[in-house]
Amino acid sequence: MELKEAILTRRTARKFLPKAISEETLLEILEAGTWAPSHGNNQPWEFILIGDETRSKLAKMYQEYMEAGPLKNPDLPEERKQAARNFAMNFGDAPVLLAVASAPAETDLNKYDFPMATAAAIQNIFLLAWEKQIAGVWLSYGMNPKAEKLLEIPEGGRISGILALGYPEFVPPVQPRIAADDKLRRLP
Amino acid sequence: MELKEAILTRRTARKFLPKAISEETLLEILEAGTWAPSHGNNQPWEFILIGDETRSKLAKMYQEYMEAGPLKNPDLPEERKQAARNFAMNFGDAPVLLAVASAPAETDLNKYDFPMATAAAIQNIFLLAWEKQIAGVWLSYGMNPKAEKLLEIPEGGRISGILALGYPEFVPPVQPRIAADDKLRRLP
Repeated sequence: MELKEAILTRRTARKFLPKAISEETLLEILEAGTWAPSHGNNQPWEFILIGDETRSKLAKMYQEYMEAGPLKNPDLPEERKQAARNFAMNFGDAPVLLAVASAPAETDLNKYDFPMATAAAIQNIFLLAWEKQIAGVWLSYGMNPKAEKLLEIPEGGRISGILALGYPEFVPPVQPRIAADDKLRRLP
Repeated sequence: MELKEAILTRRTARKFLPKAISEETLLEILEAGTWAPSHGNNQPWEFILIGDETRSKLAKMYQEYMEAGPLKNPDLPEERKQAARNFAMNFGDAPVLLAVASAPAETDLNKYDFPMATAAAIQNIFLLAWEKQIAGVWLSYGMNPKAEKLLEIPEGGRISGILALGYPEFVPPVQPRIAADDKLRRLP
């Protein structure tokens, strides 16, 4: 797939077909992640493949978190609440549930740049996945201390994202973007 | 350019040819940034094009910072110190100096995910730039409060990266990566 096509057509998906991602494909996608830039090439990422047992626990915790917080939002339409509840049951039946964590950071510099290098790795992962007709969603739930504990993140480490990945049941419509020019400020 | 080729062959460059990046090319590259994923599509990035006047001030501050900190490291070989000094004089003569900032974050969630969404945008920028034979370096100096002030970052905002971009004088050798499999942990 052409680079620009991948960047522009990539979509987030939250519901997946019952089709496995092969080990070979998964490793190829993760390999793309390792080619992200990092400070002095320190490669501060770790990939955590979440098996069924851990996944069940994570789903339960995630559902509790959603019910206690985001789903209490009175402004959220009932339809979207139901969709979020369905997703939370089992992460949209994603065949792969993957956490990408950043390494323990001791200095202010590393606290600043480890999560961003790891985020760049996640973007590479989503892009190469998309070429293989695989899509997913980048969950922020990884910021939750309970999730960190369950995934055995060492002190000072952080989960940069929990990614549900799979072959999407459908490709969601495009989410419009603000043009680059309208996001651009010019300093003298 | 093929996506995978872009991901695997992209390199960091720190010394640039005296060749401008056209406005059209720059905007196309930034547009790629806007297609990064973000929480609820909140697009929390801002692009700041740093003009000559601001650039001179930033270079001076950056040199002072380097001399006061990183260049005092006795373990850093003299050759690398000299290269860093040369770069800091004028950011490797990069024709474009660009900051990518994340929007002011008030909630813990946004403090967590704004910088990462912005980092994903930066990765898109580097990838599409590479297709156009443009490379650059992602400076962490943006975490410096003086840089934030100079670039007029609003309270709660952050500079996710200062990017020196241009047509590289040469393509640096590959920086080896740790294989994905060696970065992978499997949970039950």
